[in-house]
Amino acid sequence: MSEVSSVVRIFDTTLRDGEQAARVNLNTGEKVQIARALERLKVDVIEAGFPIASKGDFEAVSSVAAEVRGPIIAGLARTTEKDIARAGEALSGAARARIHTFIATSPIHMEHKLKKTPAEVLKEVERGVSFARSIVSDVEFSAEDASRSDIDFLVEVFTLAIESGAGTINIPDTVGYAMANEFEEFCRTIIKRVNKPDVIWSVHCHNDLGLGVANSLAAVRAGARQVECTINGLGERAGNASMEEIVMGLRTRRDHFGVDTNIDARRFFKTSKLVSTLTGVPVQPNKAIVGTNAFAHEAGIHQHGMLCNRATYEIMTPESVGTPGTELHLGKHSGRHAFNARIETFGYNLTNEQGEAAFEYFKELCDKKKDVSDGDIEALLLDRVLQLTPEKRYTLKDYAVTVGSGGKPTASITLLHDGNEITEAAVGNGPVDASYKAIAKILPFSPELVEFRIGATSESPDALGEAHIILRCREGETDIKAQGRGTSTDIIEATIRAYIKAVNRLYSVAAAREVTL
Amino acid sequence: MSEVSSVVRIFDTTLRDGEQAARVNLNTGEKVQIARALERLKVDVIEAGFPIASKGDFEAVSSVAAEVRGPIIAGLARTTEKDIARAGEALSGAARARIHTFIATSPIHMEHKLKKTPAEVLKEVERGVSFARSIVSDVEFSAEDASRSDIDFLVEVFTLAIESGAGTINIPDTVGYAMANEFEEFCRTIIKRVNKPDVIWSVHCHNDLGLGVANSLAAVRAGARQVECTINGLGERAGNASMEEIVMGLRTRRDHFGVDTNIDARRFFKTSKLVSTLTGVPVQPNKAIVGTNAFAHEAGIHQHGMLCNRATYEIMTPESVGTPGTELHLGKHSGRHAFNARIETFGYNLTNEQGEAAFEYFKELCDKKKDVSDGDIEALLLDRVLQLTPEKRYTLKDYAVTVGSGGKPTASITLLHDGNEITEAAVGNGPVDASYKAIAKILPFSPELVEFRIGATSESPDALGEAHIILRCREGETDIKAQGRGTSTDIIEATIRAYIKAVNRLYSVAAAREVTL
Repeated sequence: MSEVSSVVRIFDTTLRDGEQAARVNLNTGEKVQIARALERLKVDVIEAGFPIASKGDFEAVSSVAAEVRGPIIAGLARTTEKDIARAGEALSGAARARIHTFIATSPIHMEHKLKKTPAEVLKEVERGVSFARSIVSDVEFSAEDASRSDIDFLVEVFTLAIESGAGTINIPDTVGYAMANEFEEFCRTIIKRVNKPDVIWSVHCHNDLGLGVANSLAAVRAGARQVECTINGLGERAGNASMEEIVMGLRTRRDHFGVDTNIDARRFFKTSKLVSTLTGVPVQPNKAIVGTNAFAHEAGIHQHGMLCNRATYEIMTPESVGTPGTELHLGKHSGRHAFNARIETFGYNLTNEQGEAAFEYFKELCDKKKDVSDGDIEALLLDRVLQLTPEKRYTLKDYAVTVGSGGKPTASITLLHDGNEITEAAVGNGPVDASYKAIAKILPFSPELVEFRIGATSESPDALGEAHIILRCREGETDIKAQGRGTSTDIIEATIRAYIKAVNRLYSVAAAREVTL
Repeated sequence: MSEVSSVVRIFDTTLRDGEQAARVNLNTGEKVQIARALERLKVDVIEAGFPIASKGDFEAVSSVAAEVRGPIIAGLARTTEKDIARAGEALSGAARARIHTFIATSPIHMEHKLKKTPAEVLKEVERGVSFARSIVSDVEFSAEDASRSDIDFLVEVFTLAIESGAGTINIPDTVGYAMANEFEEFCRTIIKRVNKPDVIWSVHCHNDLGLGVANSLAAVRAGARQVECTINGLGERAGNASMEEIVMGLRTRRDHFGVDTNIDARRFFKTSKLVSTLTGVPVQPNKAIVGTNAFAHEAGIHQHGMLCNRATYEIMTPESVGTPGTELHLGKHSGRHAFNARIETFGYNLTNEQGEAAFEYFKELCDKKKDVSDGDIEALLLDRVLQLTPEKRYTLKDYAVTVGSGGKPTASITLLHDGNEITEAAVGNGPVDASYKAIAKILPFSPELVEFRIGATSESPDALGEAHIILRCREGETDIKAQGRGTSTDIIEATIRAYIKAVNRLYSVAAAREVTL
């Protein structure tokens, strides 16, 4: 266990548990972009989805498995045969596949949710793990709600899972209930009692009481050598343990832990930004490691200390996690070479045509803005170049919006649809409302706006305006939602673009579900 | 120590360490509103500022001391005589005053920042604490960067501080470096070796590695009976330990800790919102306890579990922290009584005239929007009614903005200034840029826009648009910054209002600094 004991494997579940976060909804193209960024970050395992959950999840897992060849690709499955078979199918193209199967083991979950006895749960574990091992050689087993389970029962469950072929055993704190010192003791006891030196012990900690990272680190002290986590701590409810905090904790305090991970931490800031942009979930400024204030020293006393010696108030450097410092901005005099070099650092894979298109949009933007930041370039890549929304039923041709204290906000919008121009106008209680009413008049169905968020691509005054929206379409049996994101120097145009993207995505979702709008 | 041992005092430092967060800038009126909200939350101690740091800090501490009579009001001071005298002066009107004096004790801070020997630091401790005790009876002493200090030296420092009259001793993890298990051991050893049963032990943990809450809870296990923390975890860099997470950790796991706080946790959500609105620092959706997703169950399996038994995935109820659930919205048929009752729950203190004005604005808003949410009402209170910006040099009379694909974004703005109407027009690369250029033409000085953030008062499609900006004015010796916030159903109007507020606030700041613009 000598080599094993010094490396903690990072199992990223941003695409599975992270995507389960309320109101997060990623399509396959977006999931593949995030998976590629995780690969560059050098995570050991990517949990790409829960293939039985939906056709979209299945497609995402199989696309990630086909396109991302470095890390192990995992798919989640309950212990039932159909879940496991479906996960195996989704992973069939992977270079290295893992089936991650789970069942709950706490009294409350077994009784109220599963309605199974402990003996029945044991049978499920044996059957599920064995069946998964008949499909792939790498099987992980999780005991859901382990931290509220009886420890004697857990020892029995885990022993059986290992004997049935599981190589990784995960101890989740599913509801974020554990305290660090008790969780450390709990994991240590389990590992000792199960006593299987070849198994990799893993933890998966939720953050309901703000302790996801602390509990993960406590488990590493107890012998865990895999940690399940997400970028930005995304996940169900208050989220999962945040990868960047765990990795930097282990690294900054290597004196304390004596272990490290394979992660290239200098990519944290960029990866965090990508996940935040694609999921639409903002990162608060005071978020550790990747928040915009994480390395900002404000008080006079602190600034004085930093000038004397950075170590007075800095335990790691901003450079070590890739926080943008005095980065060069690009502008109208920047050539194609500088532009290409910059977009390469973002980690997107562009075709030649996409590269051309990106450069054209960049030049256009340079005419409107003096300094073009990385955030702006990333926004235009995501918004205009990478066709992450597969179908384009409607495109924006023209718009004109007027607001003022002298009259009602008024908008006129012209969309292209099947080569035809359609124009409508409307008034509303604001410019966005007026624009959305005008677009709705053009559509053959009436989408409901269920979420609306506007912001800027950075906090710089010269940033692009950015809008995220979610539309819902409920008609008869149909009930689907889709998101859209738009950016522009004009915030009103950004909101219009976001709406049209969401409409187009509604068509894609409807097609995938075989319903018509 | 029987009564002492079961209550953990909550020492809130949102107004001091929280306000030190980069780009946070609260005026006295705003600090008093936050202090009143903290009083309703039943915190034990409010650290209102660092009186020597600036005239504004001094004023804020004396205003909070004069107006908030429940909790102990603390002022921060280095161990120098002038710091302590100034803190005493600011606190002279308090019902219960505490001077909180500190000096760094770690080798790196003593050598590089203080340039003092340990013996000189000991002399400072004795002199500072004794002098503070000559002014007030309640003195707290902190050893800055304690977690990186030599433990033998700390025992000596703390013993001397107690013998000089300090009743509370604080052990800060200033740079967020500690690990929970070692910090618990560290605190336990110090408490045991100093061995003064009457002293209250306190901790103050930063969140650089995401462990502020875990370390605070570990210290409570070791015997700490005061925890320093902030609402939303605001503070220098990655912030301080978050109050809501600490309090709910102790309460949810009372079985583990056997202690509790005096906090009325049902006010957490509202207090978090108030602090976020006034500081302009957003709370991420996956923030524990007060994030909008903290109680959102998304996966099918989780939703199924919740329907069977809420305890499957819920360790505390959203009601226990005041998360808005199925709250009633107000609308045009709501009367004055319902309106007044609602604004009382927010915790603002309004005069009769302000109450009248608020109701008028509310009725006006009802004509534009069907459902008026709590967020909308709070926004209009802050934006239109509570005159938290003291001077009003310029007010908005009229505006008209046009955007579209057919021409450049154009704005015309009319402001009132000393009874005169002044109108200017400008084009820009977006509607906000055009508006700001038009306003800048009206002003006798040229403010620089250093930060710009737009959003909505909630994620509901019917939310008000909200803008936060920071302006800077640099001319000759003068270099001042001021923030402004605006809200409206029209996001463009919100950005215009924010700009005008920031301009007016620039005048107030300039007046306070005795410079002219």
